[in-house]
Amino acid sequence: MTSSDLYPVSRLAAVQEATAKAGLDALLLTPGPDLRYVSGYDAKPLERLTCLVVPASGEAYMMVPRLELPAAEASPASRLGLEFVAWDETDDPYAIAAARLGRPARVGLADRMWAMSSLRFRAALPGTEQVLAGSVLRELRMRKSPAEVAALRQAGEAIDGVHRQVPGLLRAGRTEREVARDIAEAILASGHATVDFVIVASGPNGASPHHDVSDRVIQAGEPVVVDIGGALHNGYCSDSTRTYSVGEPPAEFAAYYEVLRQAQDAACRAVRPGVSCESIDAAARDVIAAAGHGDHFVHRTGHGIGIETHEEPYIVAGNGEPMEPGFAFSVEPGIYLPGRHGARIEDIVVCTDGGYERLNNTPRELVVV
Amino acid sequence: MTSSDLYPVSRLAAVQEATAKAGLDALLLTPGPDLRYVSGYDAKPLERLTCLVVPASGEAYMMVPRLELPAAEASPASRLGLEFVAWDETDDPYAIAAARLGRPARVGLADRMWAMSSLRFRAALPGTEQVLAGSVLRELRMRKSPAEVAALRQAGEAIDGVHRQVPGLLRAGRTEREVARDIAEAILASGHATVDFVIVASGPNGASPHHDVSDRVIQAGEPVVVDIGGALHNGYCSDSTRTYSVGEPPAEFAAYYEVLRQAQDAACRAVRPGVSCESIDAAARDVIAAAGHGDHFVHRTGHGIGIETHEEPYIVAGNGEPMEPGFAFSVEPGIYLPGRHGARIEDIVVCTDGGYERLNNTPRELVVV
Repeated sequence: MTSSDLYPVSRLAAVQEATAKAGLDALLLTPGPDLRYVSGYDAKPLERLTCLVVPASGEAYMMVPRLELPAAEASPASRLGLEFVAWDETDDPYAIAAARLGRPARVGLADRMWAMSSLRFRAALPGTEQVLAGSVLRELRMRKSPAEVAALRQAGEAIDGVHRQVPGLLRAGRTEREVARDIAEAILASGHATVDFVIVASGPNGASPHHDVSDRVIQAGEPVVVDIGGALHNGYCSDSTRTYSVGEPPAEFAAYYEVLRQAQDAACRAVRPGVSCESIDAAARDVIAAAGHGDHFVHRTGHGIGIETHEEPYIVAGNGEPMEPGFAFSVEPGIYLPGRHGARIEDIVVCTDGGYERLNNTPRELVVV
Repeated sequence: MTSSDLYPVSRLAAVQEATAKAGLDALLLTPGPDLRYVSGYDAKPLERLTCLVVPASGEAYMMVPRLELPAAEASPASRLGLEFVAWDETDDPYAIAAARLGRPARVGLADRMWAMSSLRFRAALPGTEQVLAGSVLRELRMRKSPAEVAALRQAGEAIDGVHRQVPGLLRAGRTEREVARDIAEAILASGHATVDFVIVASGPNGASPHHDVSDRVIQAGEPVVVDIGGALHNGYCSDSTRTYSVGEPPAEFAAYYEVLRQAQDAACRAVRPGVSCESIDAAARDVIAAAGHGDHFVHRTGHGIGIETHEEPYIVAGNGEPMEPGFAFSVEPGIYLPGRHGARIEDIVVCTDGGYERLNNTPRELVVV
């Protein structure tokens, strides 16, 4: 895959069309995933304004601090034939952008635009309604192209390679932090550009779904939740969780782990075009509730993934969005017994024409190390 | 230094007082440096809302996704005796916060609050004016406490240790990327928690001030700009630039390098309480202009530094802010000859009662390796 496959030049026209259709005059995209999705430019987030202005009609252009001009010109954004509007240290880039924009009725801001920019745009464009660019871009970003699915598959294979090393790193007497440091190195060695998170949650820490790492020493007989991910150089992310046991686990753990495994499998098997996001959540939740653990599954079943680890669609009660081929998201139910231990199993799944494909394929049976 | 020295519990009351004095009803602080400064909590930036609400009077509280509650409770924020308002996956945390806030006239948003949150707060608090929390916090954040200066000094010593290793890593035949990878490892090994940037700009790349790295092979006789920094585990940042020469440099380079060294020294010596930020910029710029290189110094002289690499005060024309003891910022003039080469020298400097202290102390004379 090249950058041109993942960030095709044709995307800009599609975004302009969607912007017009949504009744917006322009999108204002500061550094972050929205800018990268549209232009391929992985711009540094800085206090100096970089902003791709995508009007519903007419030519797009990019406001760039003069210092960053060489970086912008060397980026994939240069393929778009954009005008780069370089501004100098003592210029007001918001005023320059506002003068070019005229008096738009509604603009869409990058979902992660900093308040330091959104409030400056508000002041420079006082009559303009601000909405989220995500309201336009979500429709495009949710439907992954074959090249994007291939990039996510590559990320999945890379993180699977790391999970295969975890049994060799986990043992009683090591701290969570020591294990996490080794895992972080393995994530980079596997071809990821960044380590986005490394959760190593042993024993009672496993009962806190977003526990990070600590200096806790792993004990024999303890389950350990390992939830890891990063981003490839092309921007696409990985995210996979496996729960291991360091020696034979308690009997009650083995019992609910098997319930969890079945719940995760049921949710994956529920994925096909047309079913709602919430029905996939329910597929996992029903299995867990039927086994008496409904109160121990305290989070949504999953989140979309692409050039962000968490993006739309969210697999959660209340989300009636129907699945379409190309939707990519995590399926990661968990069971958590406060003060004791917990378990989570997570794969990235893509909705296909005929059903689903898992992008993570290491064993889901309990691995006792 | 402990977390209690750097992020004292007393800070919350000082922030509330400043909030009242600025005529704001509350600050809304989502994950990022503003939240960390006030509470010590280095919260993960997530699509789920975490928000410290600091009213001008009354009790502060923190909106927290239930999943993140253990992390929030384990963080330094717990020392503040705050109420943690946990919300569940199907709750609307903006509505919950709005109901508690009543009808504030003006609120201050964390400077880095994502549009995805600022626009939700706007909808939930339709009559409320939004301004930047930075308008309140900048006055506090600019004036570093002795503990903060000590943390910046520690960061400076750590990055100086890395610069001392650079001559051993730079040689003709290596690519910028290879050198940068070794530097990144050294930054982590020196006690930094993160590598924030590694610029290795050889030959003509050195003429682009924000060039990052490339696969360019370093040649004999070339100057190389090395600009590096990261954040310590306590949150405080380092940032130092030195320009090296791989073998004897061209004569014209040696000549303007000496001008640059004198300019950087003049700017440092200009620092003392009461002088304006722009006069420090001018002190460097005047030396460079007098040598005929005014057009080759294309950026401001520096930026504040603390728990962000770039924060106030900015050392730039137009900034009349008078220096005070505890201001900490970079002094980093550069001279750039497009298509040929460039040089930059950067130290972090603190304004003291009697003048200034440099926090970087590796040689500023040209190091030929």
